[in-house]
Amino acid sequence: MNLPSYSDVVKAHQLIGEFIHKTPVMTSSAINKIIGAELYFKCENLQKTGAFKFRGACNAVFSLTEEEAKRGVGTHSSGNHAAALAYAASLRGIKAHLVMPSNSSEIKKRAAAGYGGLITYCQPTLEAREKTLAEVVAQTGVTPVHPYNNFNVIAGQGTAAKELLESIPELDIIICPVGGGGLLAGTALSIKALSKHCQVIAAEPKNANDAYRSFMAGYIIPSDNPKTIADGLLTSLGEPNFEIIKEKVDQIITVSEEAIVEAMRMVWERMKLIIEPSAAVTLAVLLENKSDFQGRRIGLILSGGNVDLTKLPF
Amino acid sequence: MNLPSYSDVVKAHQLIGEFIHKTPVMTSSAINKIIGAELYFKCENLQKTGAFKFRGACNAVFSLTEEEAKRGVGTHSSGNHAAALAYAASLRGIKAHLVMPSNSSEIKKRAAAGYGGLITYCQPTLEAREKTLAEVVAQTGVTPVHPYNNFNVIAGQGTAAKELLESIPELDIIICPVGGGGLLAGTALSIKALSKHCQVIAAEPKNANDAYRSFMAGYIIPSDNPKTIADGLLTSLGEPNFEIIKEKVDQIITVSEEAIVEAMRMVWERMKLIIEPSAAVTLAVLLENKSDFQGRRIGLILSGGNVDLTKLPF
Repeated sequence: MNLPSYSDVVKAHQLIGEFIHKTPVMTSSAINKIIGAELYFKCENLQKTGAFKFRGACNAVFSLTEEEAKRGVGTHSSGNHAAALAYAASLRGIKAHLVMPSNSSEIKKRAAAGYGGLITYCQPTLEAREKTLAEVVAQTGVTPVHPYNNFNVIAGQGTAAKELLESIPELDIIICPVGGGGLLAGTALSIKALSKHCQVIAAEPKNANDAYRSFMAGYIIPSDNPKTIADGLLTSLGEPNFEIIKEKVDQIITVSEEAIVEAMRMVWERMKLIIEPSAAVTLAVLLENKSDFQGRRIGLILSGGNVDLTKLPF
Repeated sequence: MNLPSYSDVVKAHQLIGEFIHKTPVMTSSAINKIIGAELYFKCENLQKTGAFKFRGACNAVFSLTEEEAKRGVGTHSSGNHAAALAYAASLRGIKAHLVMPSNSSEIKKRAAAGYGGLITYCQPTLEAREKTLAEVVAQTGVTPVHPYNNFNVIAGQGTAAKELLESIPELDIIICPVGGGGLLAGTALSIKALSKHCQVIAAEPKNANDAYRSFMAGYIIPSDNPKTIADGLLTSLGEPNFEIIKEKVDQIITVSEEAIVEAMRMVWERMKLIIEPSAAVTLAVLLENKSDFQGRRIGLILSGGNVDLTKLPF
C-alpha cells in the first residue's frame, strides 16, 4: 500500500498554502480553569467551507495533472467533503461531480450547489452511492477523490496539525476526532515527525466506536449502523488510514453523547465559536477524564463548524 | 464637560494592553460576494467576557488610584458591562458591587457571579437601579463606573477601532453599533485621529432609534420604551458620548429587525462566529443598503457574542 509520509504533508502545505486559511489557534482561560490544563484550539471550523476537509480536497485537486484536471473530479458524500471538493475544484476552474444521497439535508445540497458542484442524486445506501459514482466516472472520465481513502487527502489533512505544532511547539498531547481516519492519520504523520514526546490521542463517540475496536483488535472492524450526534464520524476506518494510525497513534478514547453536547455547548458559550458535534468530541475526552490531563499542554483540533442552526441539541 | 480625546485612547491602550485580547480581524469571501464590498470584522465577541465592554471596564478599574481601588467599584447593569466590570475588578484584586434588576436573565446573573461580582438585586426600573446603586456607594465608598457616561470607559472602548485601523489601515468606512454611545464615541475618536478619509457610520435598530433622532435634532431625545431583539442597544445616548458623536460621526443608519436577524444568521452560518443581535446591526446596514457600499473597504465592529442559546431567533 502506498502510504503518505510527513514529507508529503510538507509538499501538500506548499501546494495548498495560498488557497487555505491558516486558521487561528484560540485559547479560553475559563475552559482551562474547568479542565485544569492549558488548551490550544486549532480552529478548522473557521477553515474555508467550514471544515478541515478543504485541506485534503484542495491537495487532491491541485495534485492532478493538467490532463486529469481537464476531466474534473468526482466523489460521493453527503457532508463536508462534497462542499470542500466542489470549492477546491472551482478554484482550479475544473468540474466537480458530486453523488449525493437523495435524503441529504437541504443545507448540504445548497452548500454543494453553491460552490458550483454538479450533483447527481442517488438512493441513500452505500451501494447506490458507489454504483452511481462508478457510472459518473465511466461517463465523464473524472478522477474520483475519496473523502479519506486517498493519499493526497491524508497528506492535506496533516497540514492542520503541522500549523498547530509550528504555532505552539511545546504541546504534550494532541486530541483529534476520528471517523474515516483521514484527519487522524494526517495529524499523526505531522506530530510524530515534528515532536519527540507529543502524544496523539484520537477521540471517538462511544456510539460509533469502530476505530477504538479496530485499534484494539489490530484489524479493521467496520461500524455497524452507528447512531451519534457526531454525524461526521459515522464512517468506518479506511485502510491506508488504519495502517498509519496503528503505527503512530498512542490512544483512542471514546466519549458519551452527553459529553459531546456539553463540550459543544461549552465552546459555543465560552469561546463564541460555532463547532459541530464531530469537533466537540475532542473536548469531551477532557471533560470525561479530567484527572488524567491535569497541568498538560493540549492541542485540540476543532474539525468543523457546519451545523443546522434550526436543529440544535440545546 | 470633560471629554476624552484620542490621546486618552492611546493611554488606555497602554494601560489595558496586557489584560485584553487583541481580537482577530476576520474576513469572509462568501459575505464579501453577497454584499459586493470588502469587509473586515473586528471580533469583539471573542474579547474577554464576550464583549468590547471589557475594554472600558478594564480602563476604568486600572485608572483608579490605590486609595480608590481599596474601596472597589460599583455599577448598575443587567448586561455585558456588569460581567466586564466584575472580571476587570478581579484582575486588580478589588471588589465589584453590581446592582442588577431582579428580572435579569439567569445566564447574566451566573456570569456576573462567576466573575466574582457582589450582586444586589433591585426592582427592574431605572429609578430603583440608580437609587440602589446610590445606597451601595454611600455604604461602601465604591467608585461608580457607569456603562457609558464615563470618561475612562469611552477611552477604553476606543481601543477596538484603534486596533482595527492599525491592522487594516486603508479602510473607507467603519460601521459601529450605537446604544448608550460609549463604543461609538470611542470609535469616532480613534478613526478621526488615525485616518483622514475613513467615515464613521453608526448602526441602530429602527425600533430603538433614539440616537438617530437625537443626531438629526442636535439634542438628546431619550428612547421611549424601545422593543428590539438587539437588547444591548436599548439605552439612550449619554451626554459626553453625544458631544463626541455630534462632532465626529458622519451618519447614523437604522435597520429593521428582520435585517438584524438575517445578518446574525449570516455571520453564524458563514463565519462560524457567535455574535449577539446588537453586533449584527452593523452587517444589517450593508444588507439593507448594498448599492451604497459597492467596492468599498469596510470595517465592522462585532461588539459582542453573549446570547442565550436556548432563545435563538432561528
